[in-house]
Amino acid sequence: MPNIFSNIPSDVPNEIFEDILNTEKLRVERIVSKGQVSPEAGWYDQEENEWVIVLSGFGEIEYINGDKIILKQGDYLHLKAHEKHRVTETSSDDPTVWLAIFY
Amino acid sequence: MPNIFSNIPSDVPNEIFEDILNTEKLRVERIVSKGQVSPEAGWYDQEENEWVIVLSGFGEIEYINGDKIILKQGDYLHLKAHEKHRVTETSSDDPTVWLAIFY
Repeated sequence: MPNIFSNIPSDVPNEIFEDILNTEKLRVERIVSKGQVSPEAGWYDQEENEWVIVLSGFGEIEYINGDKIILKQGDYLHLKAHEKHRVTETSSDDPTVWLAIFY
Repeated sequence: MPNIFSNIPSDVPNEIFEDILNTEKLRVERIVSKGQVSPEAGWYDQEENEWVIVLSGFGEIEYINGDKIILKQGDYLHLKAHEKHRVTETSSDDPTVWLAIFY
């Protein structure tokens, strides 16, 4: 039985992006972060809409207008295509596990 | 900030089904169970594919061939359209929170 919290290495030198489901209509991705943040100018400007939930740890998202929000366990967020954002903080002790749906 | 574990009543006399996201391509639904099971002949025979993860509690799924699997926290499963299944057990103390994507 696959589990979203399985197979997380103790060292996460780079963020881990894994497709869980990939169909014509949508893609479900697990992202594991451990202290990583987007580079200063590293705005995500995505072709797809994204719905994302934090399942462990936490993450801070910054929008291009300077607004910041912190997502804790269970918090979820919708990001429209081309809604520029970046990750400004993630959990450095317990990994942050994100579940993202791109469509 | 919406949270998947928020707004769960202490009494859950009937399963709660709520759309979190509803687009042309997919639907994301939160399901909250507290001891409910499908009726004996209550096979789900869905038009859509479903990807489902258990985020708290647990649930047991039975397939029409008699196979049963238990999903615990973080376990996820893909059910193809018309893959008949039913829910034979859910957590009766802490509620079972399911996150399901239908597409």
